[in-house]
Amino acid sequence: MRELLPVLDGWLMSSPRVALATVISTWGSTPRPAGSHMIVNRDGSFAGSVSGGCVEGAVVEAGLQVIRDEVPRMLQYGVADETAWEVGLACGGEIRVWLEPLERDDLLDTLREHLLANEDVTILTVLDGPRMGERAVVTTFVSETSTPEVESDLRDLANAVRGRALAQLCAMGDSSVFVRNYPPPRRLIIIGAVHIATPLVTLAHTLGYIVTIVDARSAFATRERFPDADALLVAWPDDALAKLRPDTSTAVVVLTHDAKFDEPAIAGALRSDAGYIGAIGSLATATDRARRLRTRGFSSDDVDRVHSPIGLDLGSVTPEEIALSILAEIVGTHRSNPVTVTAHADGAL
Amino acid sequence: MRELLPVLDGWLMSSPRVALATVISTWGSTPRPAGSHMIVNRDGSFAGSVSGGCVEGAVVEAGLQVIRDEVPRMLQYGVADETAWEVGLACGGEIRVWLEPLERDDLLDTLREHLLANEDVTILTVLDGPRMGERAVVTTFVSETSTPEVESDLRDLANAVRGRALAQLCAMGDSSVFVRNYPPPRRLIIIGAVHIATPLVTLAHTLGYIVTIVDARSAFATRERFPDADALLVAWPDDALAKLRPDTSTAVVVLTHDAKFDEPAIAGALRSDAGYIGAIGSLATATDRARRLRTRGFSSDDVDRVHSPIGLDLGSVTPEEIALSILAEIVGTHRSNPVTVTAHADGAL
Repeated sequence: MRELLPVLDGWLMSSPRVALATVISTWGSTPRPAGSHMIVNRDGSFAGSVSGGCVEGAVVEAGLQVIRDEVPRMLQYGVADETAWEVGLACGGEIRVWLEPLERDDLLDTLREHLLANEDVTILTVLDGPRMGERAVVTTFVSETSTPEVESDLRDLANAVRGRALAQLCAMGDSSVFVRNYPPPRRLIIIGAVHIATPLVTLAHTLGYIVTIVDARSAFATRERFPDADALLVAWPDDALAKLRPDTSTAVVVLTHDAKFDEPAIAGALRSDAGYIGAIGSLATATDRARRLRTRGFSSDDVDRVHSPIGLDLGSVTPEEIALSILAEIVGTHRSNPVTVTAHADGAL
Repeated sequence: MRELLPVLDGWLMSSPRVALATVISTWGSTPRPAGSHMIVNRDGSFAGSVSGGCVEGAVVEAGLQVIRDEVPRMLQYGVADETAWEVGLACGGEIRVWLEPLERDDLLDTLREHLLANEDVTILTVLDGPRMGERAVVTTFVSETSTPEVESDLRDLANAVRGRALAQLCAMGDSSVFVRNYPPPRRLIIIGAVHIATPLVTLAHTLGYIVTIVDARSAFATRERFPDADALLVAWPDDALAKLRPDTSTAVVVLTHDAKFDEPAIAGALRSDAGYIGAIGSLATATDRARRLRTRGFSSDDVDRVHSPIGLDLGSVTPEEIALSILAEIVGTHRSNPVTVTAHADGAL
């Protein structure tokens, strides 16, 4: 949804209303997962994808109808036809797509504001029953529903799904509610523009991380060496971390292998809310460093936040394998500690 | 070395001799790891890299000298100068680079032949002492040394390093021997051109895997969906595996989530030497499938080769995270089961 916002806002400058299509459920080998979005404009143009090409044409037709009559509806498609299954297999695939009108209103404004602020945002949509079509946007700080009351049952659903799935079909009484969570982009801060950082940037990008590389040595943190990093900072680690303010969705990885850099880096990370802190080094280095950190006033609980030796023990040999073991540890830490913020109503609601 | 061979062979068409530079050891944050190669031609052109730019100029000068006098030598560079350390840090980095002449001979022919056949190849170089400059190439099937005797002590060193490090400085009596292993490119065969395959291709490429995607459905295994796959095969899984012949360096990942495809795929993989076999599916699916495989005549040991549910348990939610957990499991399996082939002498040596 974040990536569709610019197109959506452009369309809504001239169209009073567009149609939003969302994959609700899939069965079999359908190419796009539940929660995938596509938007349809009144001239038949569309952006995003619900099936990788199989049913987009039909969704556009139905979307134009929704733009006209403003009635949300569920579409169901089998993709067992000959286009999709040229070898004539019988197993098939099936998707259900929810189509609904979308226009400039408070709900969309709330959604846009919090998505663009890179906050954790959940949209809930009632798919059937007396409240069919009702929607709610729940973020860490604000709830906005298409009916004026703050619906605590919807907020409870949002909290139940957040951090566990990106999209889930839930029951609420006799109704079905589709819960779609948009977590904030996760950040990775790499202290030390060393060679392990190169594959780590590439791997982390594939997982959607926004990657910042920090090194005090300007000859190391260069665009030539890291063309794909989202940001390069030539700065001392503690200054950089004070500026970057790692939060619970941020991993800080210290690769400098040099006490002059890595101890200020770890100290800076420990003073933040970083969801993951890891530092390269042997067990002996890690033990020695832990002792020095305690001498500097950090508690044992603080020191225990530092994963060192860094990375899952895969027996990694190459820099690429070490980078993989680090990212696997970051994801494992993130997923076993899902962010469990509690949505609460804004006074104005 | 594999990637330098075309350039090397081109140069040796017209030059009787070139110089090979190899990073032997590094200290501090040097940008290229031990084992990195650079070759220098008699006209001063070079390919490859030993330091990411810091000392290449000096290595070219020394390489021209080696081409003239045919005497191997060790170079040592500190990279604590102001070019590399613009913020004036004192910690520094240091590399040692071995320079040696390389010409068309039996040793190079053996090396080329086995590298191009994607075999596991080790080069050993004696760096000092009375045998300084002596070299040996050890592969699974052949040993070739620059002296006519088969040096069993060199072969023992090669076997000790293989699968544990790509480059290692070892002691042999009073001499130092540099051992450089070139493992065969690892292969990943993905059965099922489903959406998890997309990030898995990207991640596996970063780790140097050659990736083949197999799907019986021509609409799934397309270049549009997998522009980066090294090969796409529209074929039934068992036919494809019979053709691809997975070896101990090959991982087979079954993602179809459909018994019609995944059981023939797993059966085909079990009949091969595949170093890793994994299949997607819940614990219930895995248990049920294991029962059916035993009914088909596979032993419990066979069935135990299949990692299912697939992937390390990171708590993965997104397709990208699932792909990461699969690749981490593949690497962990590979590294805890290093290939321990035994080099043996060819009769002709």
